[in-house]
Amino acid sequence: MVLINGLPDDKIAISDRGLQYGDGLFETMVYRDGTIEFIDAHFARLIDGCRRLNIEFAEAEKLSSELSIVCQSLTDNDAIIKVIITRGRGGRGYLATSGVEPTRIISTYPLPTYPDHYSQTGIKVRLCTHTLSENVALAGIKHLNRLDQVIARSEWHDSDIAEGIMLDCAGNVIEGTMSNVFIVKAGKLFTPMLDKSGVAGVMRAQIISLAAELNISVFETNVHLEDFMAADEIFITNSVIGLWPVYEIDNTVYVVGPVTQNLQDVLQQAKK
Amino acid sequence: MVLINGLPDDKIAISDRGLQYGDGLFETMVYRDGTIEFIDAHFARLIDGCRRLNIEFAEAEKLSSELSIVCQSLTDNDAIIKVIITRGRGGRGYLATSGVEPTRIISTYPLPTYPDHYSQTGIKVRLCTHTLSENVALAGIKHLNRLDQVIARSEWHDSDIAEGIMLDCAGNVIEGTMSNVFIVKAGKLFTPMLDKSGVAGVMRAQIISLAAELNISVFETNVHLEDFMAADEIFITNSVIGLWPVYEIDNTVYVVGPVTQNLQDVLQQAKK
Repeated sequence: MVLINGLPDDKIAISDRGLQYGDGLFETMVYRDGTIEFIDAHFARLIDGCRRLNIEFAEAEKLSSELSIVCQSLTDNDAIIKVIITRGRGGRGYLATSGVEPTRIISTYPLPTYPDHYSQTGIKVRLCTHTLSENVALAGIKHLNRLDQVIARSEWHDSDIAEGIMLDCAGNVIEGTMSNVFIVKAGKLFTPMLDKSGVAGVMRAQIISLAAELNISVFETNVHLEDFMAADEIFITNSVIGLWPVYEIDNTVYVVGPVTQNLQDVLQQAKK
Repeated sequence: MVLINGLPDDKIAISDRGLQYGDGLFETMVYRDGTIEFIDAHFARLIDGCRRLNIEFAEAEKLSSELSIVCQSLTDNDAIIKVIITRGRGGRGYLATSGVEPTRIISTYPLPTYPDHYSQTGIKVRLCTHTLSENVALAGIKHLNRLDQVIARSEWHDSDIAEGIMLDCAGNVIEGTMSNVFIVKAGKLFTPMLDKSGVAGVMRAQIISLAAELNISVFETNVHLEDFMAADEIFITNSVIGLWPVYEIDNTVYVVGPVTQNLQDVLQQAKK
């Protein structure tokens, strides 16, 4: 089922600014066992993103009840639910018509299944050649301008490689094409600062919070590629996959260490 | 009339990657007196943009005949014709399905009318606060990731201000929100290098070419804000407006000088 502004439809007007300019943002959520996981965090990020992009989204309650309708229509026990909010329809030109109504799009997809060993022994990743665009005003937002990720993800077709790591033009590791990254060094947890580029993932925030509860020191900082590669443990996170350890990056091998395992166990409990 | 892949329609599938990721590009062209102005240059840029984004667009002939159909349907003597090419429809995820067919969207809009003095005595512009994102791989392409322009254009609502000038984060002037910029200093013409950000406009290329024919020295170079503001003459260009002199930027006043007037006259002849 796809709902657009509350009505079943799977097409939008070409005048929608989501198509014309990528003028909007999205959330990708997991529905499992009757609930949408981390729904409050997804809503909070959506609303914060709208605020930062100055999209006047005041329909959170409508969106919430539309999500209930969509969830009730699902025949599987689990699914991906994607919400897109665009600034709405507009004429030609970058200036939005005043009073334009944002567009709400809710669509569902089957929850992908991944090999068990991805979460157990870890995944193989690669370093992407394409670097992330930098912009303080857009950093952190899960907006619809995603050509960087599209280009980076097009760099490999080897199905053994589960993710690509993206750098900024200064050689700092920022994130994966579809995930955030964490490293462990001497028992401490580090994740890249997302003040110039990158998407501030809901699962990233969850991991930072869980680490604090476990008294693991966690730092948001610049992580240069050299420091990244010299990590004791590496893992990636997103709302769909949860946490996957990394066991290999371009022929350098890592272990699934104690901090990674600890966080993975606690995350599993938190989701129950 | 709107044509999508050759058929009259004004809606696209929400699964189109143009909406999902801004995964595509566009051209904005002027139809006047029976022809599309600079059609060859627009096609060349479109095809080059597809090549750089690795969009397998092989339907230039179809697009060309669809443009003829759309032009024949016009009742006015002039119009804006906008072409959007997206990578096509796809599932969820940044990796495009192999063999995906690009989407062609042709739409028309009334040609806007501007006050006569814009092209004669010039326009008032402002400096935008929002800076352009930088990425070598995307620089120059008229792609659908346009949040930078949307944010910059939202900075003012004063209808006396016709354009906003955008800088990169190093303080170099790059372009206007919807135009390219040129300055004249000691009889020589300078326009910003677009190797890290900006859109390489069809009219910009036209002006560079006309300047060469007129034996005006023209340089694509870094133009720092200080050099920009210290120019003898400033003008902006795009395919719709042609060339507009700038007479005021944030209270600094400029004259419509001889190089600007010369280029404007020759451009007017070239369009005939």
